[in-house]
Amino acid sequence: MSAPTATPAASHATATPVRVALLGCGTVGAQVAELLVAHADDLTPRVGAPLELAGVAVRSVDRHRDKRRATAMRADLFTTDAASLATRDDIDVVVELIGGAEPARTLLLAAMAAGKSVVTANKALLAEDGATLHAAAARYGVDLYFEASVAGAIPLLRPLRESLAGDRVTRLLGIVNGTTNYVLTRMDETGASYAEALEEATALGYAEADPTADIEGFDAAAKAAILASLAFHTRVRAADVYREGMSGVTAAHVASAQAGGRVVKLLAVAERAADGRGIGVRVHPAMIPRSHPLAAVRDAYNAVFVECAAAGRLMFYGQGAGGAPTASAVLGDLVAVARNRVQGARGPGESTYADLVVRPMGEAITRYHVSLDVADKAGVLARVAQAFAHHDVSIQTVHQEGHGDDAALEVVTHTARDAALAATVADLRDLDVVRAVARVMRVEGEPGT
Amino acid sequence: MSAPTATPAASHATATPVRVALLGCGTVGAQVAELLVAHADDLTPRVGAPLELAGVAVRSVDRHRDKRRATAMRADLFTTDAASLATRDDIDVVVELIGGAEPARTLLLAAMAAGKSVVTANKALLAEDGATLHAAAARYGVDLYFEASVAGAIPLLRPLRESLAGDRVTRLLGIVNGTTNYVLTRMDETGASYAEALEEATALGYAEADPTADIEGFDAAAKAAILASLAFHTRVRAADVYREGMSGVTAAHVASAQAGGRVVKLLAVAERAADGRGIGVRVHPAMIPRSHPLAAVRDAYNAVFVECAAAGRLMFYGQGAGGAPTASAVLGDLVAVARNRVQGARGPGESTYADLVVRPMGEAITRYHVSLDVADKAGVLARVAQAFAHHDVSIQTVHQEGHGDDAALEVVTHTARDAALAATVADLRDLDVVRAVARVMRVEGEPGT
Repeated sequence: MSAPTATPAASHATATPVRVALLGCGTVGAQVAELLVAHADDLTPRVGAPLELAGVAVRSVDRHRDKRRATAMRADLFTTDAASLATRDDIDVVVELIGGAEPARTLLLAAMAAGKSVVTANKALLAEDGATLHAAAARYGVDLYFEASVAGAIPLLRPLRESLAGDRVTRLLGIVNGTTNYVLTRMDETGASYAEALEEATALGYAEADPTADIEGFDAAAKAAILASLAFHTRVRAADVYREGMSGVTAAHVASAQAGGRVVKLLAVAERAADGRGIGVRVHPAMIPRSHPLAAVRDAYNAVFVECAAAGRLMFYGQGAGGAPTASAVLGDLVAVARNRVQGARGPGESTYADLVVRPMGEAITRYHVSLDVADKAGVLARVAQAFAHHDVSIQTVHQEGHGDDAALEVVTHTARDAALAATVADLRDLDVVRAVARVMRVEGEPGT
Repeated sequence: MSAPTATPAASHATATPVRVALLGCGTVGAQVAELLVAHADDLTPRVGAPLELAGVAVRSVDRHRDKRRATAMRADLFTTDAASLATRDDIDVVVELIGGAEPARTLLLAAMAAGKSVVTANKALLAEDGATLHAAAARYGVDLYFEASVAGAIPLLRPLRESLAGDRVTRLLGIVNGTTNYVLTRMDETGASYAEALEEATALGYAEADPTADIEGFDAAAKAAILASLAFHTRVRAADVYREGMSGVTAAHVASAQAGGRVVKLLAVAERAADGRGIGVRVHPAMIPRSHPLAAVRDAYNAVFVECAAAGRLMFYGQGAGGAPTASAVLGDLVAVARNRVQGARGPGESTYADLVVRPMGEAITRYHVSLDVADKAGVLARVAQAFAHHDVSIQTVHQEGHGDDAALEVVTHTARDAALAATVADLRDLDVVRAVARVMRVEGEPGT
């Protein structure tokens, strides 16, 4: 084994710098540049050499004049030629913060082919085409780090791929989208409607002008794919993830959850199938018990709850977005990658040896909360219970609320296959004693699920 | 940079095994041995070679016959000669789970001198004499990993020393002792006295027959020293940590906390001094707001809350003790260390470049909750307020409870130097209008502290 000599701290500053190219200089990029300067005294001994910002690729140099002034970046660092910067001979590490599929993919592949290690926060690209990126990293013997792609500042990917390397993850439940968690927190705490809460989130900058990617769960599904890949050593793409957004969540859902001691969250779930063969990966709104650690994750915060064979229940909590938090994750990766270069080493690469099958949603084992508007007469409950029993779905609790035309049943099931639960709901819609299936939502995070 | 060739998964099983020696085979050791076998199919591709248990040092071979049977360990693996095993030529990695200062220190030093990388869960040794161990690791170019030494299964040390390497930790608040957290949770939830709650904890196996190390904060102080060393890149020993145990916490403290919307926890606090020069490290009971994420950490669970310049507020939550959770952390380290050997690399070593001064407790900035039994007459509040003002301590809230001989004042201060707060309390004891200073406890985790 090669034993790098311990280097006295003082000599780090005179070591050959590790030269960094930044592709993209938006909110996160500007913060990365700023922290590289502000924390330089800390970063140098941690890396074993100075980290030097050697170039910044932007779409328009003029537009970044103010940012340059704020971060004391020299004007000659800026270029609009990202492709040349990413492969320039003097660059050691490329940090990609452009986002989206192209030109990010082409730039990252070119950088790795030129021997650069790369750091990226690009969840969409990783969830869509991570295989191509990982293959390039393996082929060219470089590092590909992407901690910032999921849950911003929360150290999550490194714990999953390193700290838990001796354990077996059984399930992962995550709140990985800050916008939707903010909206759901408002609805829970103030009784606001979905529309009112979303309007507030937009006004406060928690939701974008077009919030579709967040609200409809596309963002969470991309993150779920990345987390599931790491947790289960299997290649999972965003397209493999079952996805339901939260635009259908109403104040009535929230009130039903509250009445049962639960709270509604948009969850990303990745789990081993009960029979051990394959995994399930899904994103949808769900009720969880108020006593669950995830229930206390409020506003725009993110958290991921991990259940392991040996370690038991773990949770990682923090800010999932924002310039500084995301920049912290990018810089953590940058220090690791730069340190690896100084040492002539490489971090762990893609691990897909388990190659588990992603099972369809119908095979997921979950529970349903079903609210039924019913006729208020004798025998209704028997008819309803029969519909559940017909599909081998066992009922955990049933409450009748109201009377006469307002009579309603709130049913919570035991665990069953999602397909059986869905078929039960379809049958309930056809029952003459059921005026309407008012609401259906999955229940997660309770013992036995 | 050396680019290790990507190896197809199938070939890992035929690679030269990494041979592991286990020193100590108690609850954790037996679990490590069991998981090495049970998870072998997962561990081999993650390491890049099989992990082979090559020897187990125990005090008495006979005593482990049952454990051997349960874990299918071969009888010839066992030896009582730990010193020979730790330095044997065929051993690559030594896992030390004996605990305590000696013979653990001598064995670890001998193993490193013989070129073995080591994994240990020995918090007492690390907090007392980590410098000697780290120096040996640097001198002999081997890895020294110790994730299991703090907060059992919770991935904490790796995030601190790697994920947050680009950030600056400003404060760390931890619940790092499960026994005391169990006792305090019982007191909070049932109104039990300290003695009753401790008795229950002992009956359930959460407290040892002699609970002194837990109750008096020695265990938490050792962990605080390890966490502070990593967070602030400074050598901190257990002896540098200010320590107050929880044996003085009464049902009245708990009730006072509840009345103010707070909960009592035994906290480990490590923080940068407000003037940026130096750090403070302390363990003591404290009241924290119920809305703080740490307040929801119940029973024997542990959690560490970390505040960073860029990442903001993070929390890591999980089981802090127990055979399987601790074994998970040991195995995570073992995979990392073994993988490093296969790659000819080394993980990050000790980082003490910042070399900050550990400031005395008197200079800590904190808040006090003070309960005073007072005379029920005009002018009392003025006299009490004057005592605070005399030491430049500003009062945030004051409530009078009861009347006549039961009159009491509940005072919560704004932040001030601990020495000023302590001097205020001393003066209050001398005031004729104060019949008794009934209770004093620090308040942490609120905005402005």
